[in-house]
Amino acid sequence: MSLLVVGSIALDSIENHHGSVHDVLGGSAIYASVSASFLYDNVSIIGVVGKDFPKEHVKLLEKHRVNTSALQFADGQTFRWRGRYKNLNQAITLETHLNVFEKFNPVIPEELRNSPFILLGNIDPEIQLNVISQMQKPKIIAADTMNYWIIKKLDALMNMLQHIDILFINDEEIRLLTQEHYLYDASQKILSYGPKIVVVKKGEHDVMVVKKNFYFFAPGYPLKKVLDTTGAGDCFSGGFMGYLASHNKLTDKTLKQAAIMGTITSAFNVEGFSLDALTELSKEKIESRFNKLKKYTQFE
Amino acid sequence: MSLLVVGSIALDSIENHHGSVHDVLGGSAIYASVSASFLYDNVSIIGVVGKDFPKEHVKLLEKHRVNTSALQFADGQTFRWRGRYKNLNQAITLETHLNVFEKFNPVIPEELRNSPFILLGNIDPEIQLNVISQMQKPKIIAADTMNYWIIKKLDALMNMLQHIDILFINDEEIRLLTQEHYLYDASQKILSYGPKIVVVKKGEHDVMVVKKNFYFFAPGYPLKKVLDTTGAGDCFSGGFMGYLASHNKLTDKTLKQAAIMGTITSAFNVEGFSLDALTELSKEKIESRFNKLKKYTQFE
Repeated sequence: MSLLVVGSIALDSIENHHGSVHDVLGGSAIYASVSASFLYDNVSIIGVVGKDFPKEHVKLLEKHRVNTSALQFADGQTFRWRGRYKNLNQAITLETHLNVFEKFNPVIPEELRNSPFILLGNIDPEIQLNVISQMQKPKIIAADTMNYWIIKKLDALMNMLQHIDILFINDEEIRLLTQEHYLYDASQKILSYGPKIVVVKKGEHDVMVVKKNFYFFAPGYPLKKVLDTTGAGDCFSGGFMGYLASHNKLTDKTLKQAAIMGTITSAFNVEGFSLDALTELSKEKIESRFNKLKKYTQFE
Repeated sequence: MSLLVVGSIALDSIENHHGSVHDVLGGSAIYASVSASFLYDNVSIIGVVGKDFPKEHVKLLEKHRVNTSALQFADGQTFRWRGRYKNLNQAITLETHLNVFEKFNPVIPEELRNSPFILLGNIDPEIQLNVISQMQKPKIIAADTMNYWIIKKLDALMNMLQHIDILFINDEEIRLLTQEHYLYDASQKILSYGPKIVVVKKGEHDVMVVKKNFYFFAPGYPLKKVLDTTGAGDCFSGGFMGYLASHNKLTDKTLKQAAIMGTITSAFNVEGFSLDALTELSKEKIESRFNKLKKYTQFE
């Protein structure tokens, strides 16, 4: 009953006005799987690293009970990204070295092909499709995407959208993909492309969950201290899918609560560089913020 | 027990990609007072118009039971604004003719000086202070402001803030006023300036209400059709204050529900040019959207 998390594994170097870090653990699959691990105890990561990937990072995943049996160790260097933030929401990429990630070709081990839950991080939509094709009737398939694929691989992306249940996308990306300015029009258009549910992440603002005849809004958790927003979106989708997997059903209620959980895990993550703050998370801390968010949104 | 609404009264000419209108009814006091009238039956408007102001507009106010006894008719032309929207959220001012509004000097009639509720639209902070000084121990004073006054009249604005209970401000303005990028830091700073409550309007996104040890988030009501966003902020504050006045108390619950009401009245307004859609509002329609917003935000 695994939640399969497929995506990038990176060593990030980040500069922002709070400081800078060099070659720290990052990547969509890392952020999402660790985030999900606080809500579901059967998370498996699918990704590739180089021979230089520090063993301590593998230990960190294992400490959080993330199954690393399908982690590929390839000849060469781990994917590296270097970025500088203008403010904490907008990053400029200074360097990208795909390294072993360039030939990432995920092969899902036999014992994981019947995993009911799949989270596809924002990788090449052809690879996302390839993963889906290896699976045996999964219950919930969710995927993320980004501007790069919308521009470079629109046909594969549109094909992929026909095979997933949930799309995670930010406001800028959904406007680009649908050519609609209004998020209400844009999200309805996404539903016509295939996904049953679209989750629009609006950066520092709220998150909008849309399905047929259904809306839900989860506010951004109010934070005093934001150190680094790298991985925030992946922590959102990890927390979201971890919660759905733990309930093993997709109802209006679990969908709403999953969005709240995503808000919470992603808010913890931005309180530190890399996974520093995320890994300090606990069930108690999650519950405390869940109760606060109830107070912050319920008006009767 | 009047809610006093002080602000501009204008004849607007607006162009956007849905069409254009010429010399239609507008201005902060108009939008806010009509909006408030759906929630409270004792609203008084304080403003100035020229001799050219169409009688039908006065009749419209009276139809909505807005007390126009303090409306000033001055020699000259009514304030005119002409703007063009790039998208529906950002307007470029093409022409401003202050006309009679240039010498607007509100004199609160004796019988309204004991009004317990005051909403000061975004006019010169010196005029806002002048109005406050004429009042006898009001219960709740709320004010709006804008970039122009933050830049041109900061001292008067800071003085004004010490005399009000609630500040309505948008995300761009609060960043300018506090020099803080993060809305959490920015809103805490506003509380240190004087207001007990700050309401941050984030355009198409959600609204954040902050007071000491209190947060509340009201989502933007999801709309299929947005025709013209002129007056949206004023309709928000009008609905908000109308609701508080009708309950005659400021508790956590009335504060939250007031923000939801503001969201609703402002969402109705943007569905038409000028006050076309707003004036079609009814208690039933408000209640229907109130119940929908409950579903869209409550997760347990």
